[in-house]
Amino acid sequence: MLRREPPAIELVVVGDELLSGEVADTNSAFVSGQLAGIGLSSARIVEVSDDADDIRGELSQAISRSDLVFVLGGLGPTPDDKTLAAVADLCGQRLVRHKRTLRRIEAGFRRRGKRLPRLARRQALVLAGATVLDNPVGMVPGMAVEYQGAVIMLLPGVPVELEAIMTQGVVPFLKKRFRLRVSARVRIRTCGVPEAAIADRVKRVLVPYPGVHVGFYPHTAGVDLVIRGESPRKLTGLQRDIARLLGDAVYETGDRDIGEVVGALLRKRGLKVATAESCTGGLIGDRITDIPGSSDYYAGGVVAYANDAKVHLLGVKPQTLRRHGAVSSSAVREMARGVCGRLGADVGIAVSGVAGPGGATRKKPLGLVFVGVAVTDRCMPADEADGSGASDRVRTEKHIFQGIRRMVKEKAAVAGLDLCRRILLERGSGR
Amino acid sequence: MLRREPPAIELVVVGDELLSGEVADTNSAFVSGQLAGIGLSSARIVEVSDDADDIRGELSQAISRSDLVFVLGGLGPTPDDKTLAAVADLCGQRLVRHKRTLRRIEAGFRRRGKRLPRLARRQALVLAGATVLDNPVGMVPGMAVEYQGAVIMLLPGVPVELEAIMTQGVVPFLKKRFRLRVSARVRIRTCGVPEAAIADRVKRVLVPYPGVHVGFYPHTAGVDLVIRGESPRKLTGLQRDIARLLGDAVYETGDRDIGEVVGALLRKRGLKVATAESCTGGLIGDRITDIPGSSDYYAGGVVAYANDAKVHLLGVKPQTLRRHGAVSSSAVREMARGVCGRLGADVGIAVSGVAGPGGATRKKPLGLVFVGVAVTDRCMPADEADGSGASDRVRTEKHIFQGIRRMVKEKAAVAGLDLCRRILLERGSGR
Repeated sequence: MLRREPPAIELVVVGDELLSGEVADTNSAFVSGQLAGIGLSSARIVEVSDDADDIRGELSQAISRSDLVFVLGGLGPTPDDKTLAAVADLCGQRLVRHKRTLRRIEAGFRRRGKRLPRLARRQALVLAGATVLDNPVGMVPGMAVEYQGAVIMLLPGVPVELEAIMTQGVVPFLKKRFRLRVSARVRIRTCGVPEAAIADRVKRVLVPYPGVHVGFYPHTAGVDLVIRGESPRKLTGLQRDIARLLGDAVYETGDRDIGEVVGALLRKRGLKVATAESCTGGLIGDRITDIPGSSDYYAGGVVAYANDAKVHLLGVKPQTLRRHGAVSSSAVREMARGVCGRLGADVGIAVSGVAGPGGATRKKPLGLVFVGVAVTDRCMPADEADGSGASDRVRTEKHIFQGIRRMVKEKAAVAGLDLCRRILLERGSGR
Repeated sequence: MLRREPPAIELVVVGDELLSGEVADTNSAFVSGQLAGIGLSSARIVEVSDDADDIRGELSQAISRSDLVFVLGGLGPTPDDKTLAAVADLCGQRLVRHKRTLRRIEAGFRRRGKRLPRLARRQALVLAGATVLDNPVGMVPGMAVEYQGAVIMLLPGVPVELEAIMTQGVVPFLKKRFRLRVSARVRIRTCGVPEAAIADRVKRVLVPYPGVHVGFYPHTAGVDLVIRGESPRKLTGLQRDIARLLGDAVYETGDRDIGEVVGALLRKRGLKVATAESCTGGLIGDRITDIPGSSDYYAGGVVAYANDAKVHLLGVKPQTLRRHGAVSSSAVREMARGVCGRLGADVGIAVSGVAGPGGATRKKPLGLVFVGVAVTDRCMPADEADGSGASDRVRTEKHIFQGIRRMVKEKAAVAGLDLCRRILLERGSGR
């Protein structure tokens, strides 16, 4: 059987709003990530204006170089959406009304009890001869057209719509249309160690693994390492070496985020968690509840922003706040215990800190954050439990995070979830 | 005085992680947005791999066409950061250690009580002859170099670092370096009306305003309209017409988000708000506390995810939950009242819904969300207050939102905040 090279791919992303900075292009990353999952990668991404000539120009260049060209955005119903007309013009194709799409659009408006605006009908126009890829969460569908030996793939620019069409329509389409060489990839996710320190350590174990590439991707809340190689077998040894080297800084080998990892640990052991948040303002609860089915293990939480809320809703002692302040090890200790008791949870996560820009003092600098996790007997190995049921085991940690308010909040939320993760793993052996 | 054309601008964004979809490029949008703020716009954005040849190739092309070229990313300390070497090579410049930057890096590690990793010193290398733009929140600084009549602007790829250097260093630098023609721009932010309906209505009032351009930017939580024209005077009339047409769907004329708008209303009237969240899981609290100084008006909240939490922490009647369910007008009514009372707040925002993908029934479909806002006497015009102090005025709204879990959460959070906004505005007259 002939071994075919993987198709050359380019992305043309359309929108004045991208060039003017009104909107960030998250779509090309999503498309590229999905392509990586089936062993493909884009060689180049270009963002252009809504001008029909610009779109046609970039697209015809891309077609001349590549086998597969994605055009993202500009398919909406408003006058500044020019992609469809530009592609029709380039390919010499008519636009036709797509019946299945029109029925979906009408049903969508009916379901929400709203009148169908006249412009909405334009969203059912497609290129004659195109393969139409249904939009399960919105109006405008995706389309695939063959032109001059290349496949042009059109996707609407609203991120959730593009994502749904990409995963449910485009990926299956491409798997059939192209013969794909799948390469191996592993993602190792860490938190609590700076990028330079991780790179320093990892460099040492890289030597015996030629042909394997490691990328470092710092996020606000930690550093991801992505290892790539020709076959999964080649990666296994390196992956094990890196995991040993970085120890419990690694919270995930795979694509789950920290909220999902903690959720899986709780679910596995049948435990319930509750949150007591001050400076994070609800972000930990938000992260936990982003995971479908989190109601099975998340009891709820208290956003104790004001000191009154800490006292009345969590039972923090006023003298603790007077003596040590709300940003203190003692305060998060009582918050974590309090929320466990109030919500009947097995594990309590508490966070209090100075997110800034105001509120810092000499003793409590900007970015100072205390996290605390309380566990009840149910989380303990049988030989450690004292049977009293009291949630008196609490561990706290002190951090000083760099960055602006949102960064401090995100780092603090991850630190709270990560402390919970490490405690659940340590305590896991006895059950 | 000679009227100069604005400089032609391109962005070269560097990173394998962008082409492979590990990370979305939010940096070019930030840079473009800041440029728009000083009347500049980029004509083209290209994303390339970490390969030094690719970087040099794209950069030399961009320099031949443009007056100002940004190179974003690839300045970090790890082996896959190749931008600095590529630019040094292209321009024939040495790399030198920048003393002020090295001192900042050493101080940063000292402050956090961490050892300086060897690789971290590399972050103080800059191009000889470059203008160094300090990084106030991280290690690697920005740089501006003149080469063949163009300005090359190098910025690190970590978003918060790029953002800080861009606003504090690059914008002032560009204002001095180029003579700028400032164009006018107004952003009108709406929620609750679909894009097609907004475009339908706005089209009618556009006719008498030639030379003015309106862009429609749908987000998960609403639609932004951006009006652009040569002078602010030209925009005023259209802006007024649009505001009249869209009525209270407009929550902001400017760049504030809904959390900031609600915060400003609360602050102005000296009111405290509290939140009672079920399906949003803490997201409303998170949004409110993203605004610096929100502790002045945010008392805190309860994330009442489980029914027990709704009963015990908010005083929702068990029979209400039995009779109507947790996703009901009655439940959010009692949640909003309950959180006001428990936290001593003047305004209570409550949300309960089916975020999915599980939990839907025939009567309670996916995306069904009830929001409720309770107000106490302090929010009322004097002639309406009954003096009892009871928080018995509650308004609720029912929504059915389309989309995946995260979308429903975001739309629900905005709907809760927006109901609060509208009520505060109506009730504002009496104070």
